[in-house]
Amino acid sequence: MSYKLFYAPGAASMAVHWMLIELDVPFETVLVDIDSSAPRDPEYLRLNPTGRVPTLVIDGVAYGESVAQIMMLAERHPGSGLLPDAGSPGRDEWLQLTIYIANTLMPAMRDWLYAAKDGDPDGAHAVKALAERRIRSVWDDFEKRLSGDGDYLLGDRFGTVDMLAVMLMRWSRHMECAATGRPVLRRYIDRVMTRPSYIELNIREGLSGWPL
Amino acid sequence: MSYKLFYAPGAASMAVHWMLIELDVPFETVLVDIDSSAPRDPEYLRLNPTGRVPTLVIDGVAYGESVAQIMMLAERHPGSGLLPDAGSPGRDEWLQLTIYIANTLMPAMRDWLYAAKDGDPDGAHAVKALAERRIRSVWDDFEKRLSGDGDYLLGDRFGTVDMLAVMLMRWSRHMECAATGRPVLRRYIDRVMTRPSYIELNIREGLSGWPL
Repeated sequence: MSYKLFYAPGAASMAVHWMLIELDVPFETVLVDIDSSAPRDPEYLRLNPTGRVPTLVIDGVAYGESVAQIMMLAERHPGSGLLPDAGSPGRDEWLQLTIYIANTLMPAMRDWLYAAKDGDPDGAHAVKALAERRIRSVWDDFEKRLSGDGDYLLGDRFGTVDMLAVMLMRWSRHMECAATGRPVLRRYIDRVMTRPSYIELNIREGLSGWPL
Repeated sequence: MSYKLFYAPGAASMAVHWMLIELDVPFETVLVDIDSSAPRDPEYLRLNPTGRVPTLVIDGVAYGESVAQIMMLAERHPGSGLLPDAGSPGRDEWLQLTIYIANTLMPAMRDWLYAAKDGDPDGAHAVKALAERRIRSVWDDFEKRLSGDGDYLLGDRFGTVDMLAVMLMRWSRHMECAATGRPVLRRYIDRVMTRPSYIELNIREGLSGWPL
């Protein structure tokens, strides 16, 4: 099995990069400049026509969609403990929460961050306002989940949904609704960021300064 | 295994209802009135706090998120032929396309249809404009996929991604970017709607009048 991850620091590639580190499997990374306004490298566009990151190349075949990549890795490495494998207790809750994040939080984040780029800049304010409303409602949901007995979104065990969630919470750092503004979420973030894999990820991606 | 699907005609429950019919397994359905402005039945809100459909109750446990429900059913009924099972050829493409639909097309549809309800009605125009742009770009992608040799989105075989796609194409029927306005997509819809399961689904949900 060979993995090559095309990533940008702190971007949607972060959760996949994190999972690869947690899985402790060999992988290569390739940095993609997504901030530059220059057109994307045509070679990269051949791998991923959207031009976005991440692209994960598995045994020579390129795939987009970070949440799908997490599922691809999960199926190739059963027993990782990062999620309930198919047929195990908690599997359905994992699927439900993973899809909820993909379906609700991720698009709202994209709207907030890219409203003026994806759409008409004149309409960006309205798009961002709705996005913010949706992000708050996801934080409400996460707060409820984290106010129970478990330290993590699905209970006692850290896993792929936490990697997605913390990555997306990081994205909220310049928003009025920053996740760190909520004590329950802040404690959760502080807990997760002590993990060696998170520290390693931040070193590898050259990230710092969060949480503030 | 017992399945109880809470649905509304033509809503996001449609793809799950369709899959249950294709799987040819026993299931119950319960109609939920989502059009009424009356507050949702508190009993339904206990099952699904979002108040949305579908809710799928599997052996007494309630789950939301239609795409997750499709994955739950897929894992319980391997060999259905409606998707590549884990470890089979085409599995990764299936994951990628399923997540793309969940992540891109479904939220854009929600934006278009519910902009004024989910957000500030004054901003609905801007939200809908961006949604429409995204929907068009998904239709572009689907057209490309359907311009190859295969009759379906993933090639020769009809499956869960087609159920999701055709449900969502139906939702576009009152939009300027209606999927039926594109000959390649129209032929695909016409092909899918001859399936006995689609006819059965429409009878059970009392749907008619599409494609126009």
